[in-house]
Amino acid sequence: MCGIIGICSDKDISKDLYYGLYSLQHRGQESCGISVWNGEKIDYHRGMGLVSDVLKKEELDKLKGNIGIGHVRYSTVGGSHISNCQPLVGACRGKKLSIAHNGNLINNLYLRQTLEEEGFIFQTSIDSEVILYILARYYKGDIIESIKITMDYIKGAYSLVVLSEEGLVAVRDPHGFRPLVLGRRGDEYIVSSESGSIDILGGEVIRDIEPGEIVLIKDGNLKSYNYRNNYKEMKKICIFEHIYFARNDAVIDSVNVYDFRVKSGEIIAREDDVDADIVVPVPDSGIPGALGYFRKSKIPFEEGLVKNRYVGRTFIKPDQNEREIGVKLKLNPLTSVVKGKSIVLIDDSIVRGTTSKRIIDSLKKAGAKEVHLRITSPPVKYSCFFGIDTPRRSQLIASKKSIEDIKEEIGADSLKFLSLEGLFEAADFKNIFCMACFDGKYPMKPMDKEE
Amino acid sequence: MCGIIGICSDKDISKDLYYGLYSLQHRGQESCGISVWNGEKIDYHRGMGLVSDVLKKEELDKLKGNIGIGHVRYSTVGGSHISNCQPLVGACRGKKLSIAHNGNLINNLYLRQTLEEEGFIFQTSIDSEVILYILARYYKGDIIESIKITMDYIKGAYSLVVLSEEGLVAVRDPHGFRPLVLGRRGDEYIVSSESGSIDILGGEVIRDIEPGEIVLIKDGNLKSYNYRNNYKEMKKICIFEHIYFARNDAVIDSVNVYDFRVKSGEIIAREDDVDADIVVPVPDSGIPGALGYFRKSKIPFEEGLVKNRYVGRTFIKPDQNEREIGVKLKLNPLTSVVKGKSIVLIDDSIVRGTTSKRIIDSLKKAGAKEVHLRITSPPVKYSCFFGIDTPRRSQLIASKKSIEDIKEEIGADSLKFLSLEGLFEAADFKNIFCMACFDGKYPMKPMDKEE
Amino acid sequence: MCGIIGICSDKDISKDLYYGLYSLQHRGQESCGISVWNGEKIDYHRGMGLVSDVLKKEELDKLKGNIGIGHVRYSTVGGSHISNCQPLVGACRGKKLSIAHNGNLINNLYLRQTLEEEGFIFQTSIDSEVILYILARYYKGDIIESIKITMDYIKGAYSLVVLSEEGLVAVRDPHGFRPLVLGRRGDEYIVSSESGSIDILGGEVIRDIEPGEIVLIKDGNLKSYNYRNNYKEMKKICIFEHIYFARNDAVIDSVNVYDFRVKSGEIIAREDDVDADIVVPVPDSGIPGALGYFRKSKIPFEEGLVKNRYVGRTFIKPDQNEREIGVKLKLNPLTSVVKGKSIVLIDDSIVRGTTSKRIIDSLKKAGAKEVHLRITSPPVKYSCFFGIDTPRRSQLIASKKSIEDIKEEIGADSLKFLSLEGLFEAADFKNIFCMACFDGKYPMKPMDKEE
Amino acid sequence: MCGIIGICSDKDISKDLYYGLYSLQHRGQESCGISVWNGEKIDYHRGMGLVSDVLKKEELDKLKGNIGIGHVRYSTVGGSHISNCQPLVGACRGKKLSIAHNGNLINNLYLRQTLEEEGFIFQTSIDSEVILYILARYYKGDIIESIKITMDYIKGAYSLVVLSEEGLVAVRDPHGFRPLVLGRRGDEYIVSSESGSIDILGGEVIRDIEPGEIVLIKDGNLKSYNYRNNYKEMKKICIFEHIYFARNDAVIDSVNVYDFRVKSGEIIAREDDVDADIVVPVPDSGIPGALGYFRKSKIPFEEGLVKNRYVGRTFIKPDQNEREIGVKLKLNPLTSVVKGKSIVLIDDSIVRGTTSKRIIDSLKKAGAKEVHLRITSPPVKYSCFFGIDTPRRSQLIASKKSIEDIKEEIGADSLKFLSLEGLFEAADFKNIFCMACFDGKYPMKPMDKEE
Repeated sequence: MCGIIGICSDKDISKDLYYGLYSLQHRGQESCGISVWNGEKIDYHRGMGLVSDVLKKEELDKLKGNIGIGHVRYSTVGGSHISNCQPLVGACRGKKLSIAHNGNLINNLYLRQTLEEEGFIFQTSIDSEVILYILARYYKGDIIESIKITMDYIKGAYSLVVLSEEGLVAVRDPHGFRPLVLGRRGDEYIVSSESGSIDILGGEVIRDIEPGEIVLIKDGNLKSYNYRNNYKEMKKICIFEHIYFARNDAVIDSVNVYDFRVKSGEIIAREDDVDADIVVPVPDSGIPGALGYFRKSKIPFEEGLVKNRYVGRTFIKPDQNEREIGVKLKLNPLTSVVKGKSIVLIDDSIVRGTTSKRIIDSLKKAGAKEVHLRITSPPVKYSCFFGIDTPRRSQLIASKKSIEDIKEEIGADSLKFLSLEGLFEAADFKNIFCMACFDGKYPMKPMDKEE
Repeated sequence: MCGIIGICSDKDISKDLYYGLYSLQHRGQESCGISVWNGEKIDYHRGMGLVSDVLKKEELDKLKGNIGIGHVRYSTVGGSHISNCQPLVGACRGKKLSIAHNGNLINNLYLRQTLEEEGFIFQTSIDSEVILYILARYYKGDIIESIKITMDYIKGAYSLVVLSEEGLVAVRDPHGFRPLVLGRRGDEYIVSSESGSIDILGGEVIRDIEPGEIVLIKDGNLKSYNYRNNYKEMKKICIFEHIYFARNDAVIDSVNVYDFRVKSGEIIAREDDVDADIVVPVPDSGIPGALGYFRKSKIPFEEGLVKNRYVGRTFIKPDQNEREIGVKLKLNPLTSVVKGKSIVLIDDSIVRGTTSKRIIDSLKKAGAKEVHLRITSPPVKYSCFFGIDTPRRSQLIASKKSIEDIKEEIGADSLKFLSLEGLFEAADFKNIFCMACFDGKYPMKPMDKEE
Repeated sequence: MCGIIGICSDKDISKDLYYGLYSLQHRGQESCGISVWNGEKIDYHRGMGLVSDVLKKEELDKLKGNIGIGHVRYSTVGGSHISNCQPLVGACRGKKLSIAHNGNLINNLYLRQTLEEEGFIFQTSIDSEVILYILARYYKGDIIESIKITMDYIKGAYSLVVLSEEGLVAVRDPHGFRPLVLGRRGDEYIVSSESGSIDILGGEVIRDIEPGEIVLIKDGNLKSYNYRNNYKEMKKICIFEHIYFARNDAVIDSVNVYDFRVKSGEIIAREDDVDADIVVPVPDSGIPGALGYFRKSKIPFEEGLVKNRYVGRTFIKPDQNEREIGVKLKLNPLTSVVKGKSIVLIDDSIVRGTTSKRIIDSLKKAGAKEVHLRITSPPVKYSCFFGIDTPRRSQLIASKKSIEDIKEEIGADSLKFLSLEGLFEAADFKNIFCMACFDGKYPMKPMDKEE
Repeated sequence: MCGIIGICSDKDISKDLYYGLYSLQHRGQESCGISVWNGEKIDYHRGMGLVSDVLKKEELDKLKGNIGIGHVRYSTVGGSHISNCQPLVGACRGKKLSIAHNGNLINNLYLRQTLEEEGFIFQTSIDSEVILYILARYYKGDIIESIKITMDYIKGAYSLVVLSEEGLVAVRDPHGFRPLVLGRRGDEYIVSSESGSIDILGGEVIRDIEPGEIVLIKDGNLKSYNYRNNYKEMKKICIFEHIYFARNDAVIDSVNVYDFRVKSGEIIAREDDVDADIVVPVPDSGIPGALGYFRKSKIPFEEGLVKNRYVGRTFIKPDQNEREIGVKLKLNPLTSVVKGKSIVLIDDSIVRGTTSKRIIDSLKKAGAKEVHLRITSPPVKYSCFFGIDTPRRSQLIASKKSIEDIKEEIGADSLKFLSLEGLFEAADFKNIFCMACFDGKYPMKPMDKEE
């Protein structure tokens, strides 16, 4: 997962990109960067770490330009290297291009091999470089045309912002797996992964970029193009944006994230009959669900876990035998609240199950009588190939274990998941979501061997 | 405000100090450091920034010692300089001492001048150096005796951990302005500003260090001394620890912080009659109060403001004309929640009033119909001389304006504060608090000219 | 200018690469890096600054591999950016390649445009990336074949070390513009820009890599290939290596650098008749020439200029009005030596003339009666396209001014250059040098428009 | 060893301090710093590393002041810690003081203990802190008076620059062990450890600060005071400044360093009868001596060892089994020059003998037939207590071995030292030197137990 932003203005916008990225920081903390076009060339700055650590004042002051893009990158295992920072920048036929990409290609390996057959050489290990290369290969003066050709090749999830001499381009793949929102501030246009950034920058959200839409912005003008056809009916937005990834203030494809989360909690409560003393969320993503649960169940809502706000990139991980310290450093049970209580614990999802196990364990050690875990999404049974950092299937606890077995393993007194129908209802019965991680119905089959 | 910790063990404890400080990070983000005694000498490492930025693995690995102390320092205007990092370390008569200090002396200037008359020379601008110098001056082989003499001189708020050849010493001033908690983990002792650290490190909280108590710990043994008299009846713990500063999982002088906060919200709701649609907390410190308010009032609780979790030390502040961006970057209204609603907004306190004004403004711009601000503490009318970073009286909005005038200035539709009686009730009618910032009844008069 | 090194061993060689680069540090101080092959993948580390600043112990410890290459890069105006650090690393058809390059292509722009026409995209601004791309394009399993094809395309000066799965490859262009020396240490092979590195690493110099030679080293075996023909007769080694660039302990293409420099001084003295008191070198490169001059002329040799050894990359340059400070910081006249004296000042070359002017001015201010400048090379009248960082012709003082005019401009009392014949004699009448900067006889015509 | 500088001007002087320190960099590379007085307070910046690494532009820009001092510190074993950086800064009775110190006190421990008895506490391990504390203790408004009192207490070697509200003060101890030179640039005064800095900053050297002299400079006026008596006859300047430490362009107490070094070489050659082919200096400090030797002996002078100019603070030292690499990285023999030759090798001094042994070994391996080592100073038989970083006596090779035995141990074919008479002659028969390291005649007996 990542966050992207693009701004087209008539004045310097590196500081706005900075604030924009800062509002997308929750989408990725590993690395970040911005690139700007100043009418002659592209300048950029990238680095490992948080926005406020990488983009210092002296760097921003050097980045002059009125069109620009930015990127925050999520920390994924293995791929942590400075050469994978975005935006990528490249020169082609005397023209510079820069791209920032959110999503995952499913034919990355195939395209990479094909390009390598032709002698292309890759300097990073990210699929975004494949996009840049194809784009550059077919860029002969018409950016829209070359983007369409690129889209013929690349398969999978991609929301893109592209910086070119012809202007700022925003692209969303024909399924619209990853969000991309369009906003306006006076004569300036802003595109961002989340509506919150546009809000925060003082702009107004206009609409989502449509699946398969290509938008070209220059000098205060916006032109919209469709890729080959109208792809609206193919929309398959990743449901995990609403479940976990996006911030509460996001509205994605007309579905309000906060409302969705509260409603998920209400729905799971509706048919629940557990007799508990308090509802406790796993902060922060479990809070709206817990509010919903409490509203429907009337079981009192309590903050029973205290979250540490300061986990940094260079935090020294506890050793094996200090693992308990590790959990409690992040989430410490509030003994006065949980002691002797029967608890409904609300979390947004279970992936491997290890975190749930440790939280339940630590609640029990703090004196909780019972812990009834309620998950405001269905069991994750299938890996994601479209950009969510899920592990291989074999590591997904729900892919091989029954709910009863999971309950045993994590030490819960009872365990319930939101049903697929419930999820559908929370999403207002809108048929626009990719739920492959739950139902295995992949909108596209992955082509690469790696999965 | 600051956070301090001390550990006495029989094995290396620098990593435990690291985790302990990490759990105290909310008490100070400007600088931090630890010092350890290895039987021969004191090694230390200090620096500007967060615990995870300053104390890297390679540094910790060098800090060998089984007794140690640590410090996190709050960012205060003006005094931000590396020479002010703690713990302070000094050598005296061939013996090394190290101290970490939380609190503020009220006769700092007087003592500094007196010491300077005698030719002492100060290398930092913090009052902790005064404590170190007096301690060292009278340290002739009996650390308890020298601490008692030091306490004869220093007036004000101080919780101290001292690292010496004779062991780890923990001290709390006769009024007990600042918290200091004693815990145990097997044969090891831990003292910390907050009970949460002891919890997280896997220890058990034993009790608070008493006002005027001096505790000496070595080789698994603990001895307790009283300074001159028994000072229990003088206890004047700073009420702001409970209102704002401490984490929800802290229990200070037997008052549970989270319970106190929830109760404050209930009490203010009890006599309130506002007719509103939703209760919205200013996160994070307003959340328990809002929960309490909602429970009593039954007005639905909503997360109407989204908080950005990633403000770093080097964040580039918005210019004057971008000020609105600055507020929203920190707290962005959740439009779908607040639009068209009449809101009870819960915050823990008002100091200058500028933040409240901006939040209300931003809620209104997001469509809130009415904003009724409820503050879960009384109006702050007097400056603090005991360690809370309040501005001079002239800048305290409640020192010169009526509640009605404040309401006007910040743009609220109505404004209520918790009464002093209510505060007293929330604190379980315990007469152990310094509430000078509310009632002007200072337990001690400041002696320095600076206030 | 740059320095390159490659080592093929059966044990970890990152530390040897470190020491090797360190011994090449005089060839480039802007940036440096190493890459190593560990049987599976290529790891690398690069950065701006000196070898000892960039390659820290913790980085070296991570770079495991028994074949590796390294690079130091010279600080050139404009191109100072981290993306230009070498070795370059790239993946092609699942295979990783890494190259380090010393020299300059003369058809860089042409090739870059051609490749860009085909859709290649460039991520740096250095010509080495062109080499990497062509090499990768034609690399289909036979590294020697692909290098030959690459050599069909690239024109100009290049000494290369290439890291591949098939082993370490060393290449020198058909003219041999840039040096490349082959050495051995037990079963290990070392190739380096200068013989000194081999010496220092405890190896023995075997021979120079020949012009047009390609050498492949793996598992203690070395195979030599010729590019298309035998290019020995085309040898055109850059004479500036001997005049200025290489260290005194280098032997390049059988010409001993130190001997060459001493001899140049002798030759210019032989026909000189100036009546002076002392011979003073411009340290350090003028010292051997001054020794030679003194031996022939018998005029006493003196260290009349004291050099500061500590100019770092981040040195703050003096302002315009402090320019005199700038010269003297680097070279301060030794007043007691120069006062009242008539001086023969020996330097290796004059490019723009500004430094000579300042040194003479500063000697005169220190009391020198006369300064007779003798240059141990001919006037530089033509720009270099093969890797020496000379300015455009218009800035070469000797391209537009007579010797008499130069003398006037720099304030010398007399000025003599070594003749082309003298230079030829100093080089032992070996007809293997490119002297285009002196005589304009370029071995190849530059194809790019930029010159 | 260290270097100090002070400037009194009517405009900002931090940049001049920077250039001044830069010209003193050879006197210390471990740490550096400057402090400036701006009429109200003292600002400072200090750090580990070279001047160009520690004092960046952004730091200098913040250091506003027209009076200032600076310090470079030599890397000594054990004491390498940031808290030992100078200038020290301290506040006393509302007034700030800052000092920079070159030299070593011989009653440091005694004074430290005495001060500690009175309760003073030390935050560093350097003797300069003792000076600061005594100075501060007695500073009651008259800086000259307090310096005189301080001088009553401190014994040993000290050249000081002091920054105070009353102006810039420069002090040299009654024996004048360490140099301190006074210069002028228009209305500005400069004091520096070496005359070269004054020169380089565009000033004129006026004279040396006299032993026992105290100079106070403010607003373009200079007043000179004597400490108690006239101490000119007690002058005992450290001979090692001339032998090794100072730069060739220094003139210290009217003795020209370069001339002294050349003459030392001439004198040792005068009575030598070795039949050798070439004279080779150990660069850089051996060069003038080798020139002198060659002039007298007529044996040709050659640069037979190539020095690497780039040893940085973080250089990774070779392991035990790579030790040979370590020597050659620093000094690589020039094989073409030394092969088959009988060599007179000139070095300035022998301390432990290990370096000489390695150089001779490496020359022999490069083919030298014979190596005759000539040292342009007498054998170092006694430790220095006045600031030169010599080891304890037991580690001085000449303290326990005969010249014959040393010759054997280091592998020289013959070995000669300059005689004490010769040294005296080189110094123009001036009776102003401390030669205790050669003759054991200490001007003062060390009082501390540590030696």
